[in-house]
Amino acid sequence: MMKIYEGKAKILYQTENPKELVQYFKDDTTAFNNQKFALKEGKGVLNNAISTHFMQVLSESGIKTHFIKKIDERNQLVQKVQIIPLEVIVRNIAAGSFSKKFGVERGTILSKPLVEFSYKRDDLGDPLIPESHVDALGIATFENLKEITEHSRKINIILQKEFKKTGLILVDFKIEFGINSKNEIILADEISPDSCRLWNENDGTSLDKDLFREEKGDIIEAYKEVAKRLGITL
Amino acid sequence: MMKIYEGKAKILYQTENPKELVQYFKDDTTAFNNQKFALKEGKGVLNNAISTHFMQVLSESGIKTHFIKKIDERNQLVQKVQIIPLEVIVRNIAAGSFSKKFGVERGTILSKPLVEFSYKRDDLGDPLIPESHVDALGIATFENLKEITEHSRKINIILQKEFKKTGLILVDFKIEFGINSKNEIILADEISPDSCRLWNENDGTSLDKDLFREEKGDIIEAYKEVAKRLGITL
Repeated sequence: MMKIYEGKAKILYQTENPKELVQYFKDDTTAFNNQKFALKEGKGVLNNAISTHFMQVLSESGIKTHFIKKIDERNQLVQKVQIIPLEVIVRNIAAGSFSKKFGVERGTILSKPLVEFSYKRDDLGDPLIPESHVDALGIATFENLKEITEHSRKINIILQKEFKKTGLILVDFKIEFGINSKNEIILADEISPDSCRLWNENDGTSLDKDLFREEKGDIIEAYKEVAKRLGITL
Repeated sequence: MMKIYEGKAKILYQTENPKELVQYFKDDTTAFNNQKFALKEGKGVLNNAISTHFMQVLSESGIKTHFIKKIDERNQLVQKVQIIPLEVIVRNIAAGSFSKKFGVERGTILSKPLVEFSYKRDDLGDPLIPESHVDALGIATFENLKEITEHSRKINIILQKEFKKTGLILVDFKIEFGINSKNEIILADEISPDSCRLWNENDGTSLDKDLFREEKGDIIEAYKEVAKRLGITL
């Protein structure tokens, strides 16, 4: 299969069907726009399993996603989409860059979930971008953003509920959208503890990539715990 | 008179009338969030004169401003307002932080003027802030932002026309709004070459604070030239 894209944590391969790709999950673990890097053995397997779980849950709830099926431990079959170069971040509780940038104390519950956009440009450090600028730079139209925001809010409600069952608080998460061959805007990329900030309901400890960012613990043990709580057999 | 606020370039004093302040223009010149500083003799006099001119032009065009009258070389009488802690930036051509942050070449004409907001917080470096975050942090409501954006677009059209008469291109500018005793959102602060990016129509040279930021020339000579072209007697 021909490699058509390699990102920080995944590789995309073209299949014989022009509308379908294989998405391979790597063990590569990065933070702070690639300034911090490590290989975490088994992370790809865990994220493939966890993301498969959530893509299925979301599909069952009527959210259109690129996910077709899990092929094996490290691979998924997905619809080929043209990725919209935006990181869509949904925030329920202040943390990370939001806390730092706007001086809001980590842990502050937001009066309503916030949806924000970062322009996916490694060379620029993925800057936070206002909707007006997304439109002006031709990245997406206001109409697209309205649709993306609506999808993201629905996804947030479903994921929050799913995590809550397992004693986890969904603090924030990052998703990406793409346009498929039918010109629909659908959820792409992955949903995993790499892209979600998850706090233990009882003690507030992290079960996500912040463990790696802040050197606070073993992400493999944490991701295994997340999978276990979600009832995922590995 | 009691000093009630001292900013980087101006001081506000309370008058005997609780609804009126004196706005004093200093010679202090700063850039890059105070990291660069100089005293430029006569700058306050020039900015007071230029800002007076524009506040009058805008008032005549139906824009509500805090400006009441020029008192003397360095002082204006203004309405007391509660400043909305946002820098409102209107961009006609890509330059400055916009070019750098989003990778748009300096000089690129935007398909339509862009209005953006920075959260006025020196301790945070005045970060660019999306409208959703302005609303969520209680800085201003979406309704306020809509009104501010409308005022700003009108002001842009008037200023562009005014500068064009004198052979100057209005690349971008920063304004601030406040709420007066009648609960109206009105233009406050100043309009001067400290807060506008102005390029010579014929050769593209700067006649604004970029001369100071980039050590490219004497701002006093440039600001005098702007005043002269606008027909302002000093």
